[in-house]
Amino acid sequence: MSSAACIFCKIIKGDIPSLKLFESDKVFAFLDIQPLSLGHALVIPKFHGAKLTDIPDEHLTEVLPVAKKIAKAIGAEDFNVLQNNGRIAHQVVDHVHFHMIPKPNEKEGLTIGWPAEQADMAKLKALQEEIKSKM
Amino acid sequence: MSSAACIFCKIIKGDIPSLKLFESDKVFAFLDIQPLSLGHALVIPKFHGAKLTDIPDEHLTEVLPVAKKIAKAIGAEDFNVLQNNGRIAHQVVDHVHFHMIPKPNEKEGLTIGWPAEQADMAKLKALQEEIKSKM
Repeated sequence: MSSAACIFCKIIKGDIPSLKLFESDKVFAFLDIQPLSLGHALVIPKFHGAKLTDIPDEHLTEVLPVAKKIAKAIGAEDFNVLQNNGRIAHQVVDHVHFHMIPKPNEKEGLTIGWPAEQADMAKLKALQEEIKSKM
Repeated sequence: MSSAACIFCKIIKGDIPSLKLFESDKVFAFLDIQPLSLGHALVIPKFHGAKLTDIPDEHLTEVLPVAKKIAKAIGAEDFNVLQNNGRIAHQVVDHVHFHMIPKPNEKEGLTIGWPAEQADMAKLKALQEEIKSKM
């Protein structure tokens, strides 16, 4: 399943060139040409879907092993794996993609804001039960 | 394989209580008690390892399907999936963990800095060949 209008589907097909690193029947990986650091790579399922929740499980299983393989090949000691869903969550291309972003120093790579909340344990426990009932 | 000193290994064993959402033979998931937003959950391989590169493939395959299952159960429209490797990359607990962080609005959830570089295509192409030779 692919989308004619999707830039990542075009990259998978080879209609748009890419710096390909890996390809299997379900997964495709290439270097980001607007990297946050040297070695910033993208791992994507070939199955077209905008968000993680749109991708069948069998198209997700190989994603992390491939991201790991690339991190090892690059020799990245410190790095972030990030997948964004929705504009507000920083997603720009509407085809699920996992960033593998080396973090060589404070300046390069991903920077993260961590506005942790004070936990309300009663509220959290209620949420736990609600989520479990829906899984 | 687990580590006696690891807080997440203790959570998996039940020696430390947690707001468990899911457990299989390879994966464990629970609510973060210092959430960035309501529903912030952690999905971890039971296999102990500090970084993604330390985890065997077969302990990684189920992680994203479980993160997806939780996002669906929560009804998260917009969210980030994040896995940090190394202190400089914002890792605090040295047992691989994937954050599933709902992004309900600008203020709550993960905030991201994206210091993209100008791509030097010749350098990137050389890097592509180097990585491919090591995969």
